[in-house]
Amino acid sequence: MSFRVVACDSGSRARVGILETAHGAIETPAFMPVATQGAVKALEHRRLHELGAQILLCNAYHLYLRPGSAVIEHFGGLHRFIGWHKPILTDSGGYQLFSLQQLRRISEDGVQFRSHIDGSLHHFTPEGVVQLQRQLGSDIMMVLDECIGYPADRHVAAAAMERTLRWARRSLEAFQNSEPLYGYPQLLFAIGQGSTYAELRRLCLQELCQWEFDGYAIGGLSVGEPAELMYEMVEVSVEVLPAERPRYLMGVGTPENLLEAIERGVDLFDCVLPTRNARNGQLFTTRGKLNIRNARWRLSDEPIDPALPFYVSQNVTLGYLRHLFLAGEIAALQLATEHNLAFYHWLLEQARQKIRQNSFRHWKRSMLEQLRQTEVAP
Amino acid sequence: MSFRVVACDSGSRARVGILETAHGAIETPAFMPVATQGAVKALEHRRLHELGAQILLCNAYHLYLRPGSAVIEHFGGLHRFIGWHKPILTDSGGYQLFSLQQLRRISEDGVQFRSHIDGSLHHFTPEGVVQLQRQLGSDIMMVLDECIGYPADRHVAAAAMERTLRWARRSLEAFQNSEPLYGYPQLLFAIGQGSTYAELRRLCLQELCQWEFDGYAIGGLSVGEPAELMYEMVEVSVEVLPAERPRYLMGVGTPENLLEAIERGVDLFDCVLPTRNARNGQLFTTRGKLNIRNARWRLSDEPIDPALPFYVSQNVTLGYLRHLFLAGEIAALQLATEHNLAFYHWLLEQARQKIRQNSFRHWKRSMLEQLRQTEVAP
Repeated sequence: MSFRVVACDSGSRARVGILETAHGAIETPAFMPVATQGAVKALEHRRLHELGAQILLCNAYHLYLRPGSAVIEHFGGLHRFIGWHKPILTDSGGYQLFSLQQLRRISEDGVQFRSHIDGSLHHFTPEGVVQLQRQLGSDIMMVLDECIGYPADRHVAAAAMERTLRWARRSLEAFQNSEPLYGYPQLLFAIGQGSTYAELRRLCLQELCQWEFDGYAIGGLSVGEPAELMYEMVEVSVEVLPAERPRYLMGVGTPENLLEAIERGVDLFDCVLPTRNARNGQLFTTRGKLNIRNARWRLSDEPIDPALPFYVSQNVTLGYLRHLFLAGEIAALQLATEHNLAFYHWLLEQARQKIRQNSFRHWKRSMLEQLRQTEVAP
Repeated sequence: MSFRVVACDSGSRARVGILETAHGAIETPAFMPVATQGAVKALEHRRLHELGAQILLCNAYHLYLRPGSAVIEHFGGLHRFIGWHKPILTDSGGYQLFSLQQLRRISEDGVQFRSHIDGSLHHFTPEGVVQLQRQLGSDIMMVLDECIGYPADRHVAAAAMERTLRWARRSLEAFQNSEPLYGYPQLLFAIGQGSTYAELRRLCLQELCQWEFDGYAIGGLSVGEPAELMYEMVEVSVEVLPAERPRYLMGVGTPENLLEAIERGVDLFDCVLPTRNARNGQLFTTRGKLNIRNARWRLSDEPIDPALPFYVSQNVTLGYLRHLFLAGEIAALQLATEHNLAFYHWLLEQARQKIRQNSFRHWKRSMLEQLRQTEVAP
């Protein structure tokens, strides 16, 4: 395992790093497209390669239920099953189990839950989730954590944080006492919890940092709290995290969120926002967001975003894409998804470049101003 | 306009031709993927180029209703609107109006119909449909015809055939008395009708062949009649058609149908079968058809069809594709559609090669045997 910081912005905590994994290196800050069930919704792997995607996020919870870990093990792991040979991070299922609400029961041992597909009963433990991710063969495995909603009472947040700590310890032991199944090493990242309580966040990560995790995630954010509170929790977290380990802000977020978090020292992100919003017709562009269904684009022969160096952004017109959305064509979802992920990858590529040039803060300020324009006519 | 036959199979009527259009030449026999509303369902233009698609079929009826011909004219024609710069053929709407059933009323003047989208009232005449296709700027325009179902009484078939003839005459006059809008020439194809009555088919095409159409279509087939009857109608039609004009069998068909019709002298095809069936999980392969949802593929790490020289066919495994279908992923539709169209284009490329080599019939026989295998385990 190796993570090294190769450039730091002098005016902020922003940094460029290289995270080495068994399936290749990731230059950070990096955004991980979400391939919940082993495919990014409406976008093929080949397009992701073209856009510069370095790593995919898949969900252990979903893959456990369908097709099942035995199928994936039969194929020789997730990379071979889905035909993606760059790095993969698998989420532990903590967040999915939190979302199930009525269908799960949490105990010290783990989480009992009913499948959202067929109602069948299952049980996740910290050890079982490590074993599951051994079967998946992901490059980066996440510990099982207890995720809670916002707002949360302090004692609820403290209890979930403490259980997350105990589960992290058990996960690490299971990790250290097991071997990879496919002959290449896997990494294990811990997850800090603590809701919006700074001292809980600090306590949690201080404890986790004493153990030998390969990276640290900031979990349980972007669950409804104001953005400023999220940024504060990120700051508090980064302050106690070691410089020589990657930092992953889970489930975040908007382009603005990403730039603010990069400034505060975050290295990795994942979010369904660019893909889900694409399918709803919301496009992220260098001129701000736009809703492609809006009648103003009916006769527009302007491309989606000529400022981006991608075929889809430069060649598909707003008028044609609007037509495809109104006509219910699947191509609309494909093209919008491709563009939004192109935008995210371009934004992070720009960020890395500006950090290397020591001009991140200045660039961020002007970029945020640009992004706050909304539905500007081309 | 130029169509020339460049190779003939000695053992059959099969031939290779070159059809020149304003947006490039098409080597026939050719299959036209159907892009009803300006996009092939679940497949982007870029993939079609990679597969070797030479020409797209779009529907004048659908594009007239949405986005409307004024929008497309504003963009400078269909090629620019949809961003496809190779040839486009537009269907006249005859078949769509036939499918509307309860929503249309046919008179000598034309067809009055209600939009399937919003119920609004519209009127298509032979002249209006030529004008519409002038606005679309398709390379190949089709005349408005009267399409009927199967079986049809002889007097019904004769009446529809005779009206089709009168409408074809009016279409040709409208074509000759109008100019292209975008500075490049367009072609006009006539459509032969006559249901399953050989003498009606013959009469219709003999009459049409006396006028100056750029090509001739065989319409009103593949509407429920037995395949043998369709082949017989194709034979009867080809016998009266001039060798120096392209022959287009509309809405056909299965791989078997295509090979049988090529043997009988057909040059052009279109059909929704490969794309629609792909979305339902039926794959066409060199080992026969297979239903990807079948449990037998659950653990299959065999690619869809290693015999085809395409990425998707050689790299996507049956087990993974089955998982994507069961999981409801849009990627399943994309990959299956891409494979099926890859298969169709490969099949026609093979046919052209075998005709040039004078070995079409022998190849066709062994290929049909191969294709009759169904769901053979890889």
